[in-house]
Amino acid sequence: MTWKPNRTEKRTLFDQIRAWIVEQIEDGHWSNGMRLPSQRKLAEQFGVNRSTIIQVLDELKAEDVIESRQGSGVYVKPRGWDFVLRQQTLDWHQRIKQSAYKVNAQTIQLINEYEALPTTVRLGTGELSPELIPQTALLKSFSELTLTNQELGYSEPLGSLHLRNTLTSYLERRGIVTKPNNILIVSGAVQALQLLSLGLLETGTSITTEAASYIHSIPSIPSVSFQASNKKTMYYTIPTLSNPTGKILTLEERKRLVERCSVNHMPVVEDDVYSELTFDGAPPALKSFDRAGQVLYIGSVSKCISPGIRVGWLVGPESVVRYLADLKMQLDYGTSAISQQLVAQWLNSSYFYEHIYNLRASLKKRADFTEAILQKTVGDIAEWESSKGGFYIWLRIKQPVVTKSLFLALLKQNILINPGYIYKPNDYHYVRVSYAYCTLDELKRGLIMLANEVKKRFI
Amino acid sequence: MTWKPNRTEKRTLFDQIRAWIVEQIEDGHWSNGMRLPSQRKLAEQFGVNRSTIIQVLDELKAEDVIESRQGSGVYVKPRGWDFVLRQQTLDWHQRIKQSAYKVNAQTIQLINEYEALPTTVRLGTGELSPELIPQTALLKSFSELTLTNQELGYSEPLGSLHLRNTLTSYLERRGIVTKPNNILIVSGAVQALQLLSLGLLETGTSITTEAASYIHSIPSIPSVSFQASNKKTMYYTIPTLSNPTGKILTLEERKRLVERCSVNHMPVVEDDVYSELTFDGAPPALKSFDRAGQVLYIGSVSKCISPGIRVGWLVGPESVVRYLADLKMQLDYGTSAISQQLVAQWLNSSYFYEHIYNLRASLKKRADFTEAILQKTVGDIAEWESSKGGFYIWLRIKQPVVTKSLFLALLKQNILINPGYIYKPNDYHYVRVSYAYCTLDELKRGLIMLANEVKKRFI
Repeated sequence: MTWKPNRTEKRTLFDQIRAWIVEQIEDGHWSNGMRLPSQRKLAEQFGVNRSTIIQVLDELKAEDVIESRQGSGVYVKPRGWDFVLRQQTLDWHQRIKQSAYKVNAQTIQLINEYEALPTTVRLGTGELSPELIPQTALLKSFSELTLTNQELGYSEPLGSLHLRNTLTSYLERRGIVTKPNNILIVSGAVQALQLLSLGLLETGTSITTEAASYIHSIPSIPSVSFQASNKKTMYYTIPTLSNPTGKILTLEERKRLVERCSVNHMPVVEDDVYSELTFDGAPPALKSFDRAGQVLYIGSVSKCISPGIRVGWLVGPESVVRYLADLKMQLDYGTSAISQQLVAQWLNSSYFYEHIYNLRASLKKRADFTEAILQKTVGDIAEWESSKGGFYIWLRIKQPVVTKSLFLALLKQNILINPGYIYKPNDYHYVRVSYAYCTLDELKRGLIMLANEVKKRFI
Repeated sequence: MTWKPNRTEKRTLFDQIRAWIVEQIEDGHWSNGMRLPSQRKLAEQFGVNRSTIIQVLDELKAEDVIESRQGSGVYVKPRGWDFVLRQQTLDWHQRIKQSAYKVNAQTIQLINEYEALPTTVRLGTGELSPELIPQTALLKSFSELTLTNQELGYSEPLGSLHLRNTLTSYLERRGIVTKPNNILIVSGAVQALQLLSLGLLETGTSITTEAASYIHSIPSIPSVSFQASNKKTMYYTIPTLSNPTGKILTLEERKRLVERCSVNHMPVVEDDVYSELTFDGAPPALKSFDRAGQVLYIGSVSKCISPGIRVGWLVGPESVVRYLADLKMQLDYGTSAISQQLVAQWLNSSYFYEHIYNLRASLKKRADFTEAILQKTVGDIAEWESSKGGFYIWLRIKQPVVTKSLFLALLKQNILINPGYIYKPNDYHYVRVSYAYCTLDELKRGLIMLANEVKKRFI
């Protein structure tokens, strides 16, 4: 803190100090929730009267940038985009407001932000823990990668043919018989969802899905639960290890779902990214029962190898797939050739299968450990289904106390939860607990703190 | 051709044969422009009367799937999405029509399609020739890649901090002084453009650009040339080695442009992806003159290392960059961690600088070679500016003969050109010749055939 206002500058001391403080906050030097130095210290540092400091702080309080907390000083206020954007000379803020694009909800922005801090205990993160990522094998396989000069160029619209050929065999594991021309390589499953939303939804219509669904957490993809029959929608589901509920549809339920959608000429989007992670297997994919070309199937390696690879796939009728490929070419000209080659190499070798075998066992241990702790800490005030695989336990608290205030209270203690209302709007009973990311020690500590905060709010 | 209709099947012979032919075309076994076997041969193969064949062919002609050409038989008709999509059981076609997304123009679809065929001479491809891609060094660097388990996870919204730190030094080459928090890593420059279009353009407004501009070739990004002052637009330009014109703005022009846009509070999008490829250098980036935070700067390694890497960057005010990062998280959850690490490694080592040094020399040789051929073949009927670097010569034919018909005529001879009207709508004088992709031999052959076709059309 060696900066001082410049008395020879045109701007007033007030303006300079205000701008400097805003800069500290904008640049992240003063983080959300940080306590500001005292008025006396600031006055000393800047070489100005305390009254100037008081004036600046009042202004910043009025602007919602900082806040007083009784008896304990002045703090940087947790903030959304609104504040940050107001500061621009050019009116970027106005432009952003006028665009059709919807930003992530503040809860999700905070999740993205706090996930980047090493001190955060990430109790809800839907991602493999660093210790579960097969780093050694991945680094080894990098050195074995071969790509021709052609493959290092722009890829063809559908993506690497080598990878698509590999996937036609790989997908037989899920009961899916398909051809390379029915497969579009994407940069992760979420890109596939965006392609469907941008390319196949009429403006003003939404994707239909379950009450609790991952897709509700992506604000730029319009989605609703259980809407009245509308021929212009499509049905999104994760039939195997649903995010967030962890459910696996039975064979009967799968057949019925495909049949019902077939009768209604309703496309089905099957998100199958967790299917490698079942503890006791799962029925074949919905896509395997698809005779009318109406199931669009999505897979990815993000949940089972490493999300940093950013490779997924979409399987559907050739014409639809080619149309979406055209859209993808406009969005990003294809997926990283290196990542595509790496995935083909893994799926064609023992790397993948050995890793998956070990990963399932590790996840099962983590799930058991977590359920034992849940039993001890919230056994009396919550309920859940025993995990069948994947990452999540969809914890239902018996009273609706999982509010934003609970989320923020835990955040102050460096505990980051994924509250259920992100996935199931307007329902405050749930927490999506992930046993995949934290260390066991963090899981224990985090769940105890979660239990404490929850119990405080019980009536 | 061993298929025969099945006489025990419910469908008529007519239906079976029609469906089989459509399948050959849809699956690409019978390619656009292919001549069909004679009626006699088809009747023999299928074991049916010639009259059935005639009926089927008539039907397919009526459906615009095939066409007769006088005296030379029946051919597969070059087709757009329309035909292919009509074939679906579920009415995908209707859904696609109703989405807001615009497909690539047919010329661009054909370019994307023909680029994938090994026999095509790609006279306009904006991509390094396989022989110019530093494959050996890239493969070597794969084996030197190190990524921590954390880096193999989901990246933070702005992208790899290691790469962003690297870029702050690298960008000083272009006169840009910035910080890691002002940089968003993207999956290639085109993704940056999509983020700007989706995130900062109000519905119904367009990006303003030059009459001839790369951005006109992306239908899903609304753009217009020289529109009347409209505060809601932004100005897109490639000031260094413009695609397609090859122009480099002078220092004076750069300063004037930034100043003019500053007065009008107009954001400027500076696409700088070719700047490493100048033969005699270029003035500093527009961004280096930006005092008001209104220039959004875009760079990439696609044009100077390899497009398969899919890594670019966008530099701007932190709040705008963070907002676009939020959008990118929704679109694809970040760029391949492997690709990001590779780029950081290259920019931090001699790999990059040695490669660029050699690449410039190779491109210069190719440019000189190409201009010598142009002089011989179209010296009398065309004009162009000598190349200052990059990939392109913006060839102006003295008569407006560069029509879709010229494009298709050359395509039949396996010569793929990028006609100027893709980049400069409604102007039929130009061809974007790329000397970067073909072999020298193909360049010579292709340009001679281009000259022939052009001259045929001269009045």
